[in-house]
Amino acid sequence: MGITLKPVRVGICGFGTVGGGTFNVLQRNCEEITRRTGRAIVVEHIAQRRPNVNCDTGNTAITDDIFAVANNPDIDVLVELIGGHEPAKELVLTAIRNGKHVVTANKALIAEHGNEIFEAARKYNVVVAYEAAIAGGIPIVKALREGLAANSINWLAGIINGTGNFILTEMRDKGRAFADVLKEAQELGYAEADPTFDVEGIDAAHKLTILSSVAFGIPLQFDQCYTEGISKVSAEDVANAESLGYRIKHLGLTRRTEAGIELRVHPTLIPEKRLIANVHGVMNAVLVDGNAVGPTMYYGAGAGAEPTASSIVADLVDVVRDMAVDQNVRMPS
Amino acid sequence: MGITLKPVRVGICGFGTVGGGTFNVLQRNCEEITRRTGRAIVVEHIAQRRPNVNCDTGNTAITDDIFAVANNPDIDVLVELIGGHEPAKELVLTAIRNGKHVVTANKALIAEHGNEIFEAARKYNVVVAYEAAIAGGIPIVKALREGLAANSINWLAGIINGTGNFILTEMRDKGRAFADVLKEAQELGYAEADPTFDVEGIDAAHKLTILSSVAFGIPLQFDQCYTEGISKVSAEDVANAESLGYRIKHLGLTRRTEAGIELRVHPTLIPEKRLIANVHGVMNAVLVDGNAVGPTMYYGAGAGAEPTASSIVADLVDVVRDMAVDQNVRMPS
Repeated sequence: MGITLKPVRVGICGFGTVGGGTFNVLQRNCEEITRRTGRAIVVEHIAQRRPNVNCDTGNTAITDDIFAVANNPDIDVLVELIGGHEPAKELVLTAIRNGKHVVTANKALIAEHGNEIFEAARKYNVVVAYEAAIAGGIPIVKALREGLAANSINWLAGIINGTGNFILTEMRDKGRAFADVLKEAQELGYAEADPTFDVEGIDAAHKLTILSSVAFGIPLQFDQCYTEGISKVSAEDVANAESLGYRIKHLGLTRRTEAGIELRVHPTLIPEKRLIANVHGVMNAVLVDGNAVGPTMYYGAGAGAEPTASSIVADLVDVVRDMAVDQNVRMPS
Repeated sequence: MGITLKPVRVGICGFGTVGGGTFNVLQRNCEEITRRTGRAIVVEHIAQRRPNVNCDTGNTAITDDIFAVANNPDIDVLVELIGGHEPAKELVLTAIRNGKHVVTANKALIAEHGNEIFEAARKYNVVVAYEAAIAGGIPIVKALREGLAANSINWLAGIINGTGNFILTEMRDKGRAFADVLKEAQELGYAEADPTFDVEGIDAAHKLTILSSVAFGIPLQFDQCYTEGISKVSAEDVANAESLGYRIKHLGLTRRTEAGIELRVHPTLIPEKRLIANVHGVMNAVLVDGNAVGPTMYYGAGAGAEPTASSIVADLVDVVRDMAVDQNVRMPS
């Protein structure tokens, strides 16, 4: 009974850790995903620089040209996982102009070029989804946009950079110096060779910019964000905070003020009894205060192949559900 | 440009704490809710036993007959807030047979009669939504069903009874006896005059039954739940746990086992460093472990007028979005 809808055809651009994780999660949990979506999701085209040894891609078409995926007329949704500004921006805009929905984990792209990208998406009537760009596997965009839809959001505050939280946790637990822990984080693969984005707060500022836009329904305003990292936090600072019953956490904070929406990223003293002060290591957490629900918190892995894939696939499922709507009815904007 | 859709017309049955909170949140956050929904949500009919002094209902039609709302042809969605088994069940089935969507906060009704109610909803092609039945304002049903749609869920464990968590928190913080704290909880309005549902674990078992069904995509099986409350936990138990570095929390736990899905509710020793061991007072939290995302946690107020209203209105927003789909396209089940 009932019509059987065609599978949704996905192209993945960028087939490293997260791309491979996304492919594998779609394969492994295929049955459950199809049950929840009402329609199969099939990866039909992959653009990669080198093969991913963790994936059995079988007969899937492979290219080294990301634009071949964006221009492939058989692809319904493009998953952008190459990161950075260019050519990611041109890739996403090409996909949009070709009428494809886009799912991305690229926080720099959305935070700094999101207004332009969303305008193009509206013009070409496609969805651009970016749950995976913030806080890895935590469904925080969905919580803000749908779960808390009844609320006017007062403020939100989050530990949204796992590398920074790992460093601060190690400094506190073991009395170690910043530079020493950073070196270990680099060896463990938690921090990049150039750690500037993580330790100077830029990564957190990108994510906060996106969260603020979703929470308050405003355009992205990355250049309005006060940004301070953890590179000046010393072992003494951490010990002094501890002796007073506080912990130092690197928070992104956005709230309504009389002068407009405030955005800031900086180290913060938090009383040790607060739940968010007990979020350790590479884990992320976002506290959201709504005018009906009060304070709520969302916690989980902020990075990693399969946690990030979890958010990408959740976005794919939502896009697929929306496609049924798009093909039949248009809501007024 | 584009068509302007008619407002969605809601009837509220039961106009006490939560009903009044729902009415007030819909009024106060009307602008934001309409922006997120693309369509206004208007309360057109209220069934109450007595006026709610916290609400200015203006010209809204008022009745003391709940079935007048279920049979009112002008109502699109019925919000059931009378609680308990009957006449709530007959009310909900009447609304369904009349083609109305239903939003409910009634955990006993869904846990014990949900299979029958969902079958009727499928037959009459309407939605029955129940986010508010579990963990107050925390969007946990949405997280399980949509945010974690990529995952096969391994297990979940939650503090899902605020009264019980308040009692255990007071016993630990102040070394007080169970009976003493229960009396205070009753005076504060956190516990009922007959506290059986809360302190013997039945309320938590209702909620766990629903969460288990959503997480694993299985029918509701309340009679399979092992249920033990906190009434036998002594001040000595709490102190002994504390001295060993543990806290006693009342958890609902459901997981996949080789013998099927396990459901159990009982006091549990948790190492004090775990995040969920630091959820205090009347707050709720649910830990969910998915096979892609790993452990995630969702925290917030488990009860109260406006936290519960937050979930009811979120369900209304989802129902309204789905109505656009329902009127135009039918997904195969």
